[in-house]
Amino acid sequence: MVSRPVVLASNRGPISFAIGADGQLDATRGAGGLVSGLGPLVANTETMWVAAALSEGDREAASAGVIEAEGFRVRTLAIDDDDLQQAYDVVCNEHLWFLYHGLFDLTRSPAFDETFFAAWDAYRRYNERFAHTLIDEAPADAAVLVQDYHLSLVGPLVAAQRPDVRCVHFSHTPLAPPHLFRVLPSRVGEELVAGLAGHHRAGFHTPEWAAEFRATAQELIGVDPATFVSPLGSDIDSLRAVTTSAEGEAEAERLTALAAGRQIIGRVDRVELSKNVLRGFTAFANLLRRRPDLHGTVVFAAVLYPSRGGVAAYSRYGDEVTATADAINREFGTADWRPVELDLSDNFARSLAVLRKADVLLVNPIRDGLNLVAKEAALLNERDGTVVLSREAGAHDEFADHVLSINPFDLVETSVALETALAMTPAARTTMAAGLREAAASRGPSDWLADQLRAADED
Amino acid sequence: MVSRPVVLASNRGPISFAIGADGQLDATRGAGGLVSGLGPLVANTETMWVAAALSEGDREAASAGVIEAEGFRVRTLAIDDDDLQQAYDVVCNEHLWFLYHGLFDLTRSPAFDETFFAAWDAYRRYNERFAHTLIDEAPADAAVLVQDYHLSLVGPLVAAQRPDVRCVHFSHTPLAPPHLFRVLPSRVGEELVAGLAGHHRAGFHTPEWAAEFRATAQELIGVDPATFVSPLGSDIDSLRAVTTSAEGEAEAERLTALAAGRQIIGRVDRVELSKNVLRGFTAFANLLRRRPDLHGTVVFAAVLYPSRGGVAAYSRYGDEVTATADAINREFGTADWRPVELDLSDNFARSLAVLRKADVLLVNPIRDGLNLVAKEAALLNERDGTVVLSREAGAHDEFADHVLSINPFDLVETSVALETALAMTPAARTTMAAGLREAAASRGPSDWLADQLRAADED
Repeated sequence: MVSRPVVLASNRGPISFAIGADGQLDATRGAGGLVSGLGPLVANTETMWVAAALSEGDREAASAGVIEAEGFRVRTLAIDDDDLQQAYDVVCNEHLWFLYHGLFDLTRSPAFDETFFAAWDAYRRYNERFAHTLIDEAPADAAVLVQDYHLSLVGPLVAAQRPDVRCVHFSHTPLAPPHLFRVLPSRVGEELVAGLAGHHRAGFHTPEWAAEFRATAQELIGVDPATFVSPLGSDIDSLRAVTTSAEGEAEAERLTALAAGRQIIGRVDRVELSKNVLRGFTAFANLLRRRPDLHGTVVFAAVLYPSRGGVAAYSRYGDEVTATADAINREFGTADWRPVELDLSDNFARSLAVLRKADVLLVNPIRDGLNLVAKEAALLNERDGTVVLSREAGAHDEFADHVLSINPFDLVETSVALETALAMTPAARTTMAAGLREAAASRGPSDWLADQLRAADED
Repeated sequence: MVSRPVVLASNRGPISFAIGADGQLDATRGAGGLVSGLGPLVANTETMWVAAALSEGDREAASAGVIEAEGFRVRTLAIDDDDLQQAYDVVCNEHLWFLYHGLFDLTRSPAFDETFFAAWDAYRRYNERFAHTLIDEAPADAAVLVQDYHLSLVGPLVAAQRPDVRCVHFSHTPLAPPHLFRVLPSRVGEELVAGLAGHHRAGFHTPEWAAEFRATAQELIGVDPATFVSPLGSDIDSLRAVTTSAEGEAEAERLTALAAGRQIIGRVDRVELSKNVLRGFTAFANLLRRRPDLHGTVVFAAVLYPSRGGVAAYSRYGDEVTATADAINREFGTADWRPVELDLSDNFARSLAVLRKADVLLVNPIRDGLNLVAKEAALLNERDGTVVLSREAGAHDEFADHVLSINPFDLVETSVALETALAMTPAARTTMAAGLREAAASRGPSDWLADQLRAADED
């Protein structure tokens, strides 16, 4: 099917460069969902990957043009430091992320002042920098796969100069319905929506996010954009490489020893406001309060990655997460039982051990583009574990029949779902887990990539 | 047109009873938008008004059945103290109000636990109490006009026992689009929407709120409810009675003296999270920062009524309002100029003086069912004052062509609108104010009442 040369564009690239002791550039393969999913598919191909320079080494690499390293052809863009910080921190992390996940406390924030408008100008320049590079360097008739909310404005800029190139955008987040999008300053909202809509196609993980985008585009700028839906599948092979490693096995043994025969409720997440970690703990406490007979029989193993610690709202949230876990352990813990095992050590192998060994996986985001953890858990789990899944996660669309669905704001429903999952018969667990595995295995990253290339080819 | 006997049902009635020194009941005519708007229309008619007993005297009155006082026929309902508190404070004020105005800080609240579900049961009993009284006491073929979000469940309960009676519901708040309504626990959301949809008609101030309700009912319970749209008009005569009183005139003189020839930006609101008082002050500070030449030439007169002081979020908000006004006065004030004149004395005549004498009225709610203040200002103002109006207020629907429209989250846009309004030529002000007056005068409370009665008559 694929005849067009492929170019990927994303904020973070597949390779991170460092300046070695000898002054030479050392290349390291990066982490992150996009890279781990897409990386294997485009390594050792002609695909060019355009990304922002995020380190001193990256900036050095930027001056070298396209660099071939670790099987990738990477084009790193040196972007003005201040522009990058404004675009990434202020516009993307502090505003678009909050908007798309419904996290604003509207009584007080956002409050758009000159600082924001300056940051928006930086976001525009950041997008223009990508667009200019693509205009200059994309092969003839290329399909450019533009990834995520950092790069909303690229498509129409490229199309104006390079009608041979097809830019397809893919949103890894949800979007926002019209009444929430109207929170943005008018010209910013219109420019953002026009940018996304100006791509050849705009892709989303679920029909609902695509419908929200179309409704928003209709209301804000009066156009009906071309969209497509393609949920990302998890790259299970690269995860298995970790779980079967010596470190992976050691972490699994460590967790089994920690649980000491108790049932395990597990969760793996970034310490991220949308992930709803606090209500997850509180629902567990609710269960322990209602069911004293469960004391000592279950451990909540939460492996959480610190995230965006530089943003005040995130460091405050992290403090609350720790305090809530501590409070539960103080209220219910005994000499030989700690109800919550909270791990913030940023240990990837440890997080996969939780996905393998948990009897119950709690995935309760407030709102989530997809939630790849739910998919990974489905494929890695070795105990026919039951997934308790928020109906507000994009993955719920594919998994509704094979999980216990919850409203993430309802502590009682969440607590009862955990209780139900812990008490399920082996036969019921096996049936549910088999259905979940089948649903999760039905698509991999290559299907998702193929959908984007197909979208680029559609007229 | 009206042939059906009319019954009004609302949480707060037109009369408040107190037990006098002699042990007898003293009746006082109450305040509040609904009473001041509807009161004159139904006083001295056969209309029965059913309301909750909110005081010791009201509860005493409840045992007497229908009481005729101050021209009203009032039926006060004694409701269990705890039920009333749970239904009114927990369900209505802390949850439905926040839901309908988009005020939840979803990272942390709501978190539905057993306390909420118990309060929901109380809300149901509170609604059942109204329904049973209406079933027992409504005249044959009555049109029952059920008011606001306190009483969402009455209609279908009455209809099941009294098919001759037509219950029409009217929402003075916005409603919520489906994705926000989904925040509620499933069975609560479904019961609430089914309750509203089970009225003969459900009325709203704007087409947008009605459309949100229909979309929500479609998504949550799969029905397409019958709605109607009827913006309330202000009862200007009762306001004029105050402005032309000795107290009213004295307050107008007081304000004029306070301004000492400076231009007046005015606002009148409850200290209410949805009213967006903080961003209003911050936008004013932004203007003073950008335009030093305006220092000493303008006063921001804010008359704010304390509200729901018992709710922690409100008392905290009140503290922030005072602190923000103080900070602006410290930063910009001089020996003979205080930029913000903040008045929290709960003085009705004083608030009307602001509406009369302001050169610019700031009405910038985050989200608002209608906003009657904007309508009152249009009719009372004596200086061809310009209204700076949030596009998220229901009243914006009627007034868009005769105000300066703002996005309430955009401080720069708000600040520029204030600047523009202060600088408008007398001719431009006159034209805009005339258009606004005409739009505001086009409907009064009697039109709104007639719309409800017409909705009751429709088949």
